[in-house]
Amino acid sequence: MRSIRVLGVDPGLTRCGLGVVDGVGGGRLALVEVDVVRTPAQAPIGERLVQLEASVETWIDRWQPDVVAVERVFSQHNVRTVMGTAQASAVAITCAARRGLPVALHTPSEVKAAVTGQGRAGKEQVAFMVRRLLRSPDLVAPADATDALALAICQVWRGAAAGRIAQAAAGSRT
Amino acid sequence: MRSIRVLGVDPGLTRCGLGVVDGVGGGRLALVEVDVVRTPAQAPIGERLVQLEASVETWIDRWQPDVVAVERVFSQHNVRTVMGTAQASAVAITCAARRGLPVALHTPSEVKAAVTGQGRAGKEQVAFMVRRLLRSPDLVAPADATDALALAICQVWRGAAAGRIAQAAAGSRT
Repeated sequence: MRSIRVLGVDPGLTRCGLGVVDGVGGGRLALVEVDVVRTPAQAPIGERLVQLEASVETWIDRWQPDVVAVERVFSQHNVRTVMGTAQASAVAITCAARRGLPVALHTPSEVKAAVTGQGRAGKEQVAFMVRRLLRSPDLVAPADATDALALAICQVWRGAAAGRIAQAAAGSRT
Repeated sequence: MRSIRVLGVDPGLTRCGLGVVDGVGGGRLALVEVDVVRTPAQAPIGERLVQLEASVETWIDRWQPDVVAVERVFSQHNVRTVMGTAQASAVAITCAARRGLPVALHTPSEVKAAVTGQGRAGKEQVAFMVRRLLRSPDLVAPADATDALALAICQVWRGAAAGRIAQAAAGSRT
């Protein structure tokens, strides 16, 4: 079974987590890169979205993921930040789709269930399991970063088959 | 006073209104073009956002607006559609900001107040005034289209000064 590389995106305007993981469905995982991209809260929204777009483009260019996994945003989230989250997710999804990369969306509970076995796990439990699954006990990273890695892991494990189906469907449409 | 050209965007994934208006603050207005861009509800979100991006790019290329005015999305909107609206607005804002075009955001009540004098005016009243202000009584266009024109008119009238300030500020930052 071929290893796939996933870019996970925990979308946000102020803080956007980006994490790249290599792995095979049900098999070993490897941490490739992780970081949090920030845009200044006082900048105009257009400038922030363009900055975020440039970061996502750089990450896709550099790491050449097979799939991009983005957190599915719900309007039930914190209403103060949900608009920025939705807008940041649109930028990440558009960057991927523009290049023909498959985009997978996962809900927070799908991600938590994938990495901890429990859809309602807390942030610390997710971070603990991400470090353990990636055999990186010393990884120092904020929650947005470990959440992005958790999204990527969720995609490696849950999405391998779904990704191939989406790709085949996208191919048959062109 | 130089006439400015505004592209108004009433954001939406299923239906996105685009309208171009020429005018001077407080002066005569002219309808340049108006349409509604649709993306298929059954298509993957990435495909829809990329289609919308291509349409907005085409409009900016063709009509060369001085400013892009986009409806400010609130989470108080219809929660079923607000995510798509926020994502569509992100695409329009990013297309404009990527080219260094000023982006203005107006709330629905600002737009209604600008064209009807009443922040709580109904859709039909807005459409009636848009036709009247643009001297286009026979314009056949759905509400998304007249809303996009209303956004553009609002920007011509309210935003001429604000736009220049934003541009100057953007210039001083580079």
